[in-house]
This record gives sequence, structure tokens and C-alpha cells, in this order.
Amino acid sequence: MKTLRDIGEDALIARLLTPFPPSTLCVGPGDDCAVVDDGHGPWRLLKTDAIVEGIHFLREAPPEKVGWKACARVISDFAAMGGSAREIMITLACPPDLEIHWVEGLYQGIARCLAAHEATLAGGETTSVPDGGPIMISVAGTGQVDRRHCVLRSGGQPGDVIAVTGTLGGSIHGKHLDFQPRCAEGALLAQAGASAMMDLSDGIAKDLPRLAQASHCQFEWIPEALPVTPGCTPDQALGDGEDYELLFAISPARWHALVLKWPEELAPIHAVGRLLEGPFCESAIQGGWEHFRT
Amino acid sequence: MKTLRDIGEDALIARLLTPFPPSTLCVGPGDDCAVVDDGHGPWRLLKTDAIVEGIHFLREAPPEKVGWKACARVISDFAAMGGSAREIMITLACPPDLEIHWVEGLYQGIARCLAAHEATLAGGETTSVPDGGPIMISVAGTGQVDRRHCVLRSGGQPGDVIAVTGTLGGSIHGKHLDFQPRCAEGALLAQAGASAMMDLSDGIAKDLPRLAQASHCQFEWIPEALPVTPGCTPDQALGDGEDYELLFAISPARWHALVLKWPEELAPIHAVGRLLEGPFCESAIQGGWEHFRT
Repeated sequence: MKTLRDIGEDALIARLLTPFPPSTLCVGPGDDCAVVDDGHGPWRLLKTDAIVEGIHFLREAPPEKVGWKACARVISDFAAMGGSAREIMITLACPPDLEIHWVEGLYQGIARCLAAHEATLAGGETTSVPDGGPIMISVAGTGQVDRRHCVLRSGGQPGDVIAVTGTLGGSIHGKHLDFQPRCAEGALLAQAGASAMMDLSDGIAKDLPRLAQASHCQFEWIPEALPVTPGCTPDQALGDGEDYELLFAISPARWHALVLKWPEELAPIHAVGRLLEGPFCESAIQGGWEHFRT
Repeated sequence: MKTLRDIGEDALIARLLTPFPPSTLCVGPGDDCAVVDDGHGPWRLLKTDAIVEGIHFLREAPPEKVGWKACARVISDFAAMGGSAREIMITLACPPDLEIHWVEGLYQGIARCLAAHEATLAGGETTSVPDGGPIMISVAGTGQVDRRHCVLRSGGQPGDVIAVTGTLGGSIHGKHLDFQPRCAEGALLAQAGASAMMDLSDGIAKDLPRLAQASHCQFEWIPEALPVTPGCTPDQALGDGEDYELLFAISPARWHALVLKWPEELAPIHAVGRLLEGPFCESAIQGGWEHFRT
């Protein structure tokens, strides 16, 4: 009998979507967020994301940072569309023997993250898991994006420059718990005409092929151009995951204009490759994180 | 050091909400759903809910029914406001050794429930839990409700009749996995002027005091008037939980009018008590299900 370990996350998702009718959304499953057009005002963004003890954080981690991370991951996905967060809902599943002060710390981190991004707590749920089970925090959020400046994964064109914000690798040493979602950067990139964008959650070795595939392009890239976090190896920059930086494509002309006006106070941007003509083919890079495979 | 088991779910939630600023929502945490007013069109409803293996279902349960249940619980909360579902997002956390066919069955149940309620899958996420960890399915949904007919928990008035749809108790023998969210009933009750409403998830012994407290009323009820599921005892009807019927309050005049025109094809309604003047006081009924306490 086949298990999830045998097929991995991407193939699993493709199989799971089979019984559903074609989506009536502007953007359905497969991008960083779902996009809903109510016919007026900004487009609505929808996103859900979960973190699990033992996978995404350890019990010893400061609970404030775990709460921050849980919310910041969802807000990072809104940033990856060029948008921002509105309402956030929290589902907390934890064993009955968990200390109250841990949960209070968690919610203080959640409150801090929401305040920093002008988002509202819209509800949530607490439920128990059997004693010894892991703590799970599932965050669902709504966001919004200017309908003229919503950037998908799929809009990349052959010839576009591929670039990233910030530096990559080594997130496990701390950044994964207190990263800043790149909302200001994402909004500016959207206004500047980025053709495709996503956030880097599983490592650029895994995520760049996803962006290229969604854009029906091949790609080339220059390993030496990767902005590596100080103290990390290039391999770590490729595959550690949890960078929560933005990966984007943009035409060369727009890239050159962007570099000239990029604000100093934002995370720096670096070109790392280029989209090419031709059908996407798999396994162009080895590395990166895929759930169930590890 | 105090643990969650020491204080229970309701006290926990009150403590967790302390660090958040007052909500800018029409209805914030504490009702069946959060309610957002975009200034035009129907009000938006937001809800998140999770089910956990070993708490809400067993691994031996048919996965199609588990998927149905996960979604139907959220849709039941929309029904409890007089509303209906729009977009649904699924977060699945499961161990890598889970069989693929189980997960495919789960999603078939989800698809069936969404189709039955004209809701759209808007995305989701799969993540791993450590081997041996429980399966968790977290469902976040958006819904909508006519802004003239949104029923909260808090609108009950002294003198209102308290009533329920369907029968109570014994859900564990099967109904908890394949119940029908009472959307048609909820919409009709909202139009008929129900003053307060919620869905019965933790048993009427736990949930009726919650409705009375939210409405700043005391209550009286007649145990013999409870519509008990055939084969169940009155105690089971009080405390089993997972009935997913609607509990509502309505003025006596409207109740009498409602009974005359209640459609045969809907779940039957039964009066079980009355809201009274005076401050709510705790512990009026013993029984019901509270997370972390058990």
C-alpha cells in the first residue's frame, strides 16, 4: 500500500484535487494564495498554513516567536501576491498537559505580528490532541491586493530576470522564527511590474522550478549569484528552506529601472537567473525541502 | 505550573484574547463566526475549525466521512448565523506513513460536502507531522449572510422561547460523521426573526448556558421537552455533544407563527425552554464536552 512518503507533497496535491470541479476563483489552488473577485474593490486573498511541533518548531522555542512565525508565514504569502493581510484566524491543537504560559506566549507573538501588519484577529479555535501529540497551529487569513497589481506565479515570460529579496540559507539558526514578511517589497515589486512572484518557503532549489513550471518556462541560473546568508554554504542557501524571501521574475528593462530606485530601507534585491523559452523539465536543481519525503 | 487541563477551554480563550486590541469586526471572536462588513453586499463570514484523530475521529473511520465532517462543521457554523458557505481551505497535517488512499478518500468526502453546499475549494496545505503523530484536518471557510438577517448568539431577550432543530444525543453512533449542516433551517429561522442562534457542538448542557450568557439572560428549561434521539437517554441528549443541530431563541409570537409554516422537509423544531430576566449565573446544567478538561 502506497504511503505519503512514497509520492511526496507535489504529487499528492495533484491527486487530491482530482474530485473537485474547475475553480470559479480568479486564482485557485496552486498559487501562494487563492484570489476572489467580488466584482468591486480590491481582490480578496485567501490563505491557510500550519506549523507543527517537531517539524516547524521545537517545544523549546520561545512561544512568542512560534506565534510570530505562524502568522508571518501567511502574511508572507500575501506579500508574494503584492498584497497585504486583513483578518487572521487561529486554530490551536495541543495536548492537555501543555503549560498555560506557553499558550499565552504564543498568542502574544501572534498579537505582535498582527499589530505589525495591521491585521485583525477574526477568531479561531482551540482543540485538544491526545497526550503526547504535537502542538499544531493552523492560521487562516484573508488579505487584499489592488486588482491591477496582483502577481501570480504563472506570469513569467522567457527573458525575464529572476531575482530574490534578502539573503538565503541558514534560517534554522533563528531567522525562521522571527523573519519579516516582505510586504513592502512585494507591493513595490507588484507596482514595478514583476511578472511572477512567490515566497521562498521550501528553498530556492525547490521553489524556482515551481515558478518556472507555473510560467511554462525553462530557466537558467548562476549559483555564484545567490545572495548567501553570512556563515552559510551555497548548498544551504539552495536547500535549507524557510527563507521567506520573495522570488520574482521581471523584464530586464523593468529590472534595470527597479534597481535604480530600490529604497535602501527595504531588503536588498539580487538577480540570480533568467527564464528561458521552452517547456519546463523537472530536476534542474537538486535540493530543497518537500514534505513527506524526508 | 498550570496546564490547559487545569483551566479548560472557555477560560483559556478569555486569557488568550487579552493582548489583542478591540476588534474592528462587526462580530469578533466569541460567536459561531466572525462577521466582516465591506460596506456593500452581503456580510462576509469567517470561520476556522479543526478535527484531530483520536479526539474527533478514529483512524478506522471511513475517510470520506471524516472529510465530510471536517467541512460540514464549518458550514454548520455559517448555518448558525443564518448564512451559507462560499470558499473553503483545507490544511491537512499527517504522518508520512499514512496511506495515500486514505487521503484520497478524505478529499472525496470534502469534495462531496462542498458540492452539496455550493462551496468552492480555494486552496489549502499539506504538512507532515512526526511519525506516530495524529492526523489533523483544519478547515477555514468564508461564507456570507444577508446583512438584514444575521443572527448572533447575543440577541436573545427575556421571554424568548428556546428551541432546537432535530434530535439530540447519540451522535457518536454515526451522525457525527455524516450530519447535514442545517443551512436551510438556519436561513429560514433568520428570516423568521430568531433573536439568537448557535450550533450545538459541545452538547446542549454546555451550549445553552453559552447562548444565555451571550444574551445576558438567565434561562429555564424542561428536561422532558428535549427531543432525544431514539435509543438515547436524556443524559446523552444533554451531554454527548456533536449534535450539529441549531439552538435558537425567538419571541413567543414568532415561534407560534413559525410552527404553523415550518416545512415538513426540514428538520423538525422543538421548544425546550425560555430565556429569563436577570444576570446569567454559571453551572445551571451539568454535562457537555469541554476541550482539555477530559
